[in-house]
Amino acid sequence: MTSPTRADSARRDSTDPLACFRSAFVLPERTIYLDGNSLGALPKSVRARLDSAIDVEWGERLITSWLRSGWMDAPARVGDKIARLIGAAPGEVIATDSTSINVFKTLSAALALRPGRKLILSTPDNFPTDLYMAQGLIQQLGSGHELRLVDGEEIGRHIDDTVAVVTLTHVNYKTGRMYDMAGISRAAQQCGALTMWDLAHSAGALPVALNDAGADFAVGCGYKYLNGGPGAPAFLYVAQRHQSGFSQPLSGWLGHAQPFAFDSAYTPAEGVGRYLCGTPPVLSMIALECGVDMLLEVDMRQLREKSLALSDLFIDLVMDRCAGFGLELASPRAHAMRGSQVSFRHPQGYAIMCALIENGVIGDFRAPDLIRFGLAPLYVRFVDVWDAVETLRRVLADRLWDREAFQVRGKVT
Amino acid sequence: MTSPTRADSARRDSTDPLACFRSAFVLPERTIYLDGNSLGALPKSVRARLDSAIDVEWGERLITSWLRSGWMDAPARVGDKIARLIGAAPGEVIATDSTSINVFKTLSAALALRPGRKLILSTPDNFPTDLYMAQGLIQQLGSGHELRLVDGEEIGRHIDDTVAVVTLTHVNYKTGRMYDMAGISRAAQQCGALTMWDLAHSAGALPVALNDAGADFAVGCGYKYLNGGPGAPAFLYVAQRHQSGFSQPLSGWLGHAQPFAFDSAYTPAEGVGRYLCGTPPVLSMIALECGVDMLLEVDMRQLREKSLALSDLFIDLVMDRCAGFGLELASPRAHAMRGSQVSFRHPQGYAIMCALIENGVIGDFRAPDLIRFGLAPLYVRFVDVWDAVETLRRVLADRLWDREAFQVRGKVT
Repeated sequence: MTSPTRADSARRDSTDPLACFRSAFVLPERTIYLDGNSLGALPKSVRARLDSAIDVEWGERLITSWLRSGWMDAPARVGDKIARLIGAAPGEVIATDSTSINVFKTLSAALALRPGRKLILSTPDNFPTDLYMAQGLIQQLGSGHELRLVDGEEIGRHIDDTVAVVTLTHVNYKTGRMYDMAGISRAAQQCGALTMWDLAHSAGALPVALNDAGADFAVGCGYKYLNGGPGAPAFLYVAQRHQSGFSQPLSGWLGHAQPFAFDSAYTPAEGVGRYLCGTPPVLSMIALECGVDMLLEVDMRQLREKSLALSDLFIDLVMDRCAGFGLELASPRAHAMRGSQVSFRHPQGYAIMCALIENGVIGDFRAPDLIRFGLAPLYVRFVDVWDAVETLRRVLADRLWDREAFQVRGKVT
Repeated sequence: MTSPTRADSARRDSTDPLACFRSAFVLPERTIYLDGNSLGALPKSVRARLDSAIDVEWGERLITSWLRSGWMDAPARVGDKIARLIGAAPGEVIATDSTSINVFKTLSAALALRPGRKLILSTPDNFPTDLYMAQGLIQQLGSGHELRLVDGEEIGRHIDDTVAVVTLTHVNYKTGRMYDMAGISRAAQQCGALTMWDLAHSAGALPVALNDAGADFAVGCGYKYLNGGPGAPAFLYVAQRHQSGFSQPLSGWLGHAQPFAFDSAYTPAEGVGRYLCGTPPVLSMIALECGVDMLLEVDMRQLREKSLALSDLFIDLVMDRCAGFGLELASPRAHAMRGSQVSFRHPQGYAIMCALIENGVIGDFRAPDLIRFGLAPLYVRFVDVWDAVETLRRVLADRLWDREAFQVRGKVT
C-alpha cells in the first residue's frame, strides 16, 4: 500500500460534508491548530453576539436583562441545548460553574443516594481534578469513604456491591482512550452502583448517549469541543430519576425553589435546577451558547465519521513517515475505543512539542512524555493532518527539537 | 431649613471631585440608574478590552494565551487589585468562582480551624445564599454543627467560646445597615471565634479595612460596585495567618501546587491559591478587571464622602417632599451604620417600584415591602437623586402605582 499523498487529503476535504463549518471559525494564519481538546477555536458568531450583550444587554438594559435578555434562563436554556448533544432529555442538563465544582456536586449526590456504600471507583489516569474533588469530598465527609483507583482495563471486575459510584472520564485526556459507557453503566447498575461520567473530551467531539447507556450522572466542559471560550461554564447531567432524591450541598440561592422570595431557609428547586449555585458568569455563558448553537447544526454521525477518518489518517501517516524516530502510539487503534485525539509517547516529547509549535503546529504536551493532537472535525482538515505529520517528520528527521531552549520544561501551550 | 432645590444639586455636581468618572461609563438615556448595588453599570473600557480578548487572545493566540495573555495569572492578579480596595495585603485575595461557592470554601476552612466548636453565628437577614451555603455545609458535614441566627443588634452578646465563626454581610442587602467590622472582629477574637465577612455591598462602595479590623475571612461580589459585569467572578480573602492551616474541600486542579504535573493526589498550593478550584471564566474575568482597574484610580475617602452625601440628600428629600405618603425609612441615619444605599418600606412597595421603573428610575424591590436605591458614587449625580425623589413624589402623589398591572408580583428588575 502506498502512503496517501497531500493531494489525496485535499481530495477528501473537497468531498467533506462538514467542510463548510471551518469558515464559521476564526483561525490563525500559517498555523495548524490541533489543540481544540484543550481550548476550542473561536466561532465567528461570538464577537457580534458579545458586543451586543455588552452594549445592549449590559450597557442599556442593565439589571432588567436578567429577565429581558434571558440571562436568568441561560443555565437551563444552554443546558437543554447541550442535552441534545449528549443523549439527555430536556431538564436533565444545566450549564453552570466549573467541571470541578460539578464533580463535587454530582459525587456528593451519588454518595448520598448510596448511603451504605463507601467506595468511589475510578482510574489513576482519570483527569486529576476529578480525583482531587473526590479526595476533597471524602476528607470533608470524614465518614470512611475511599477513592479506589484501578486500571481502566480491569474496571469491570472491581465493580461490586460495595461500590457507591464509578466515576470515569469517558475519553481519557492523555491517550484518547474511550470507555464503553453502556457496558460499564450496565455492570454498575447490576451491582446497585451509580455512574458519573466526565464528558470533557466527548461532548461535541462524538455522539454520546447518556440515557440510552443508563448513565446516572455526568459532567463536562464548555471550552473544549463545545468551543465555548476560555474557562466557559461547564455543565452537569442528572438522570431524571435521581433529581428529587437529594439536594446537593452547594446549595446557593439560584438553586432555591424561589430565589427571589429571599427566605432564610434553603428549599431546593425542582429538577436539575437545584444543581445551580451562585450567579452565572453571563458573558462567558453567552460565548458558550454560540459554540453550542453551532454544534446543534451538525450531524453527529458525520462528525464522528470525520473524526475517526482524521485520526486514522494521522496514525497511518505517522507510522509510515515518522517510522524509526522512536514515537510510540499511545491511543487505541480500535475505533470503538478512541475519542477525537491521537497521542504518542517519546522520551523527548516536551522538546518535540516545542519545536512543533515553533513550526506552526499547535498540539500539547502532557508529562512525562506524551505529545497530544486534538482533531476537532469542525475546523481541522485532512490536509492539516497531512501537513502536521510532515512537520512532525521534519522536526524528528532534522532534530529540530534538539535545542537547549526546548529542554527547560514549563507549560508548553 | 428650606429643602434643597434642583439647582443646589447641580451646583454640588459641578464641584464633585468624582464627577469625571461618570463619563467613563455607558449609561442609558432618560434613565436614572439606582441599581448599581445589584448590577454595576458598564465601564466604557470593557468593550474594546473584550473585543481584543476575543479577537486576539482567543482567536489568534488560542491556547497559548493561558501564559501569553496572562489568563493563568488572572485570578491572583485581579485578586491583588481587589485587595487594595478592601484593606488586604497582596496574596490574601483571589478572584474566583461565585460568592456562594466562596462562602462554602471559607466557612469550611473556619470550621476546620475551630474543630471543637459547633456554632456558626449569623443573622436572619443575612443574604440568603450565605445562609443556604452554611446550611448545605452543615448538613454535609453531619457532625452536629448549628447555624444560629440572632438579631444583628444583639450579635455581640451571642459571641462566646462555643462560636466557631461569626459570618455577617458587612452592609445589609436590604437596608444598607453596616456592621462595625473592627468591633465585632475584636469581640470574636477575644472568644477565640473567627469572622467571615461578605463584602458584596461594601467592596468598591466604601473603604474596607480587613487587616486593620483583624478579619479572618471574607468573600465578595464582582458585579455590584466593582462594575465587573453580569455574574462576574467573585473574590475571597483569607488572612495570611490562616492560609496554610487548612486545605479547603473544593480542591480542584488550579488550587494544586503543580497543576500541570497532573499528579493523581492533591497537594494544595501555597497561600490563597489553594482556594482556586476549576478553570476561571476568562471573558467574564477580563470584564471584571476593567471595573476593578477603574476603582483603583479612585480616592476611596472621596468616594465614601460622596456616597454619604448622596444618601443624606436622598433621605432628606424624601422626608421633606414625600411626607405623608406612608414611606418608612429602612436605612440607618447614622453614617457609621450606613452603606451606599437607601431603602424604604411601603405596603405598596412592589407597585411603587414598578411605577418608578416605568418612569425612568431604576431601583429594585425586595419582598415583602422594601424599595431599594443603590447610590454608586462613580456615576450617580446629585441631580439624579433630586430627579429620582421628584419622580417618587409624583408616583405617590398621583398614585401612578395604583394600576392592576403593577399588582402581579414577579421579579421587578
